[in-house]
Amino acid sequence: MNKNISKNGVEILCIGTELLLGNIINSNAKYLAEELASIGLPHYRQSVVGDNSKRLKEMVLEASKRSRILITTGGLGPTPDDLTTETIASIFKSPLKARPELWEDIKKKLSPNEKGMPLSNQKQIFFPEKATIIPNPTGTAAGMIWTPINQFTIITFPGVPSELKRMWQETAIPWLRNYADNQHTIVSKILRFSGIKESTLAEQVADLLTNENPTLAPYAGTGEVKLRLTARAKNTEEALSLLRPLEANLRKKTGSYCYGVDHETLASVVINQLRQRGETLGIAESCTGGGICATLTETPGASDVFLGGLVVYSNLSKQKILGIPSELINKHGAVSEHVVKAMANAALQKLHVDWSIAVSGVAGPGGGTKTKPVGLVHFAIAGPFGCESFVERFGAHRERIAIQKLSVVRGLDYLRLLLVRGV
Amino acid sequence: MNKNISKNGVEILCIGTELLLGNIINSNAKYLAEELASIGLPHYRQSVVGDNSKRLKEMVLEASKRSRILITTGGLGPTPDDLTTETIASIFKSPLKARPELWEDIKKKLSPNEKGMPLSNQKQIFFPEKATIIPNPTGTAAGMIWTPINQFTIITFPGVPSELKRMWQETAIPWLRNYADNQHTIVSKILRFSGIKESTLAEQVADLLTNENPTLAPYAGTGEVKLRLTARAKNTEEALSLLRPLEANLRKKTGSYCYGVDHETLASVVINQLRQRGETLGIAESCTGGGICATLTETPGASDVFLGGLVVYSNLSKQKILGIPSELINKHGAVSEHVVKAMANAALQKLHVDWSIAVSGVAGPGGGTKTKPVGLVHFAIAGPFGCESFVERFGAHRERIAIQKLSVVRGLDYLRLLLVRGV
Repeated sequence: MNKNISKNGVEILCIGTELLLGNIINSNAKYLAEELASIGLPHYRQSVVGDNSKRLKEMVLEASKRSRILITTGGLGPTPDDLTTETIASIFKSPLKARPELWEDIKKKLSPNEKGMPLSNQKQIFFPEKATIIPNPTGTAAGMIWTPINQFTIITFPGVPSELKRMWQETAIPWLRNYADNQHTIVSKILRFSGIKESTLAEQVADLLTNENPTLAPYAGTGEVKLRLTARAKNTEEALSLLRPLEANLRKKTGSYCYGVDHETLASVVINQLRQRGETLGIAESCTGGGICATLTETPGASDVFLGGLVVYSNLSKQKILGIPSELINKHGAVSEHVVKAMANAALQKLHVDWSIAVSGVAGPGGGTKTKPVGLVHFAIAGPFGCESFVERFGAHRERIAIQKLSVVRGLDYLRLLLVRGV
Repeated sequence: MNKNISKNGVEILCIGTELLLGNIINSNAKYLAEELASIGLPHYRQSVVGDNSKRLKEMVLEASKRSRILITTGGLGPTPDDLTTETIASIFKSPLKARPELWEDIKKKLSPNEKGMPLSNQKQIFFPEKATIIPNPTGTAAGMIWTPINQFTIITFPGVPSELKRMWQETAIPWLRNYADNQHTIVSKILRFSGIKESTLAEQVADLLTNENPTLAPYAGTGEVKLRLTARAKNTEEALSLLRPLEANLRKKTGSYCYGVDHETLASVVINQLRQRGETLGIAESCTGGGICATLTETPGASDVFLGGLVVYSNLSKQKILGIPSELINKHGAVSEHVVKAMANAALQKLHVDWSIAVSGVAGPGGGTKTKPVGLVHFAIAGPFGCESFVERFGAHRERIAIQKLSVVRGLDYLRLLLVRGV
């Protein structure tokens, strides 16, 4: 059979009136596009349509004529405006059949407190007879992989990004890898960087960006940059042996800017380093308002290392919880090197930890002054080595939440760099 | 062409290979969609295509057959992969003509340090003869408004969001408002709900979901549900008068599940309620690990109400920071009604606040037992009325981060409901 899908490629269709009204940003299209690129499947077109059966029909029919695979997101919920499965089935005149095993699964997932079982959820168990189910481990909206006509496969996902991602990774990726090409294997690896701008990093590795195999592509995020290395070879072993020298070369060029690989996060890297040293961490944060603690505790097993945090958002709490003298705050201001160092040292004592990160700054939009503008953030790290402080100016043009997120990244990264230095 | 399909509506086409590779998120589509909704122009379709002349041609031709207006973004730059203007002109066989006034403008904008004038920029001054120019006050890529055939107008913008926005506001909006004069105005409003599942809410308002004008559509998020009400009328005043009775009806049916409208968040609603009462809030959180504090402090001006939080992630910090007796923890476990109530009461004292929320649970993936499984979370609220506790089972099938987010929402919502009850 001809498996040369590069002729027609993969198309993404996101379904939801909220996208047409601009209520939400289409993060699913970005995620799927990035994933398709990473497994090397050609992708030439994305579309968005509302929760409207007639227009959805038109668009699926159009796609069936030009593409081999159509990936849809949205419209799998329990309410009447969720139309994806029945609309697609009706186009190809396939009756829907209940899948009793899905009903058992949904019943388990609904909260036991709930009075009675909403009958509307039963809608979510009907699929075309020959469709393969994509189980949804974290929600009630299962998807499907269905080939209704020759050389055209539809893969459906719910619109909730976290549910889509898990279903994509667990069920769709293995199917697509198998579909793509039995002759080639594609292996990719992500190197993660912090403390360096995308353009600066791209300049440092400019000679490698034109590589054909393995390829190298930079991506920017909030406060961090990723490099994706992708190798194509006959098998995984060969692909990995193409990636190894490229990774070594990149690490040599970029030094300690590279903090981790693949699914590692700054928080997980810092926690692992401290766990290996048998040391503990506490936080004292003001302008980040709990963001450093929340980021650390997203990591499973954080409790081995992270013992606690003090969100001292007011001057009163800085005094009462940390014991910062009111004279120090009055003299230097809460956003100052003196106060942030006192916060870091007090956190060591109060939380009985080996290390602490302290942050105090102006996240805005209000509260900025000429000498202490929005975006000015003081940091201090205290640990067995003593206490170090530094200051960042993230710029008053940034939004509050961006300044908070950049501060979280910067605080964690500074601790990471101290640990790398071996202090 | 099928004469039964009458052309209508506005369509958005975003041009750029970086979108197909998932390198960037399509924020322009969201912006334009929201703007179109706000001026009441019907918008049924969005598409994305790469920097490829052949596929771009196909998509513009398709749009010309079904839509009245096509808005494009991207492909107006000076480099060879910027193809939009010439490709569109070639479809309708219109020659391009230089606009000398644009060249004067570009020369002024190029940096004076620049050695010589980049000839490539000259590309940006060629447009179809009858096109109206959309000046770009902050960049070199001008756009156009061009009606190449009867009942089909193309409006082009560069891909840089800040340039697009200014050109949209200054030139496109006045043109579109004039165009839209004979059309209808669309006004929409979002009602936000917590503590109720999407399917349960949809059943409660089932009779209204089939309304034609105004329409009603439900959307689910993590721990919250939205209903979007959309009215179509001759003008804004008439549209609002259609929305008012529907909103009143919905609020009557759903009671206190509805926590806010449009851009409000649970955190902003709770903060506003406490600000009006002149009362303050503190947090003691364990399994949510700082998430409640971080969510509250995303709201500008949170510091009026939120004084501080204690992230007591370890038993040691529960004892040292909050003064919870070790016997209480040993007897009942850290995840228990007794401990969470003690945490809430201690937070009132330590943080010198009027209200507190305390949370302790098992976020997983490890740490679950038969009696205290993953997803079991205890909450307590303390305030002028005394102290109340409750328990949730979010289910062990959920991921750690989802359990943390649901717990944040539930804790804030419980405080909101107490305030609504007027305790």
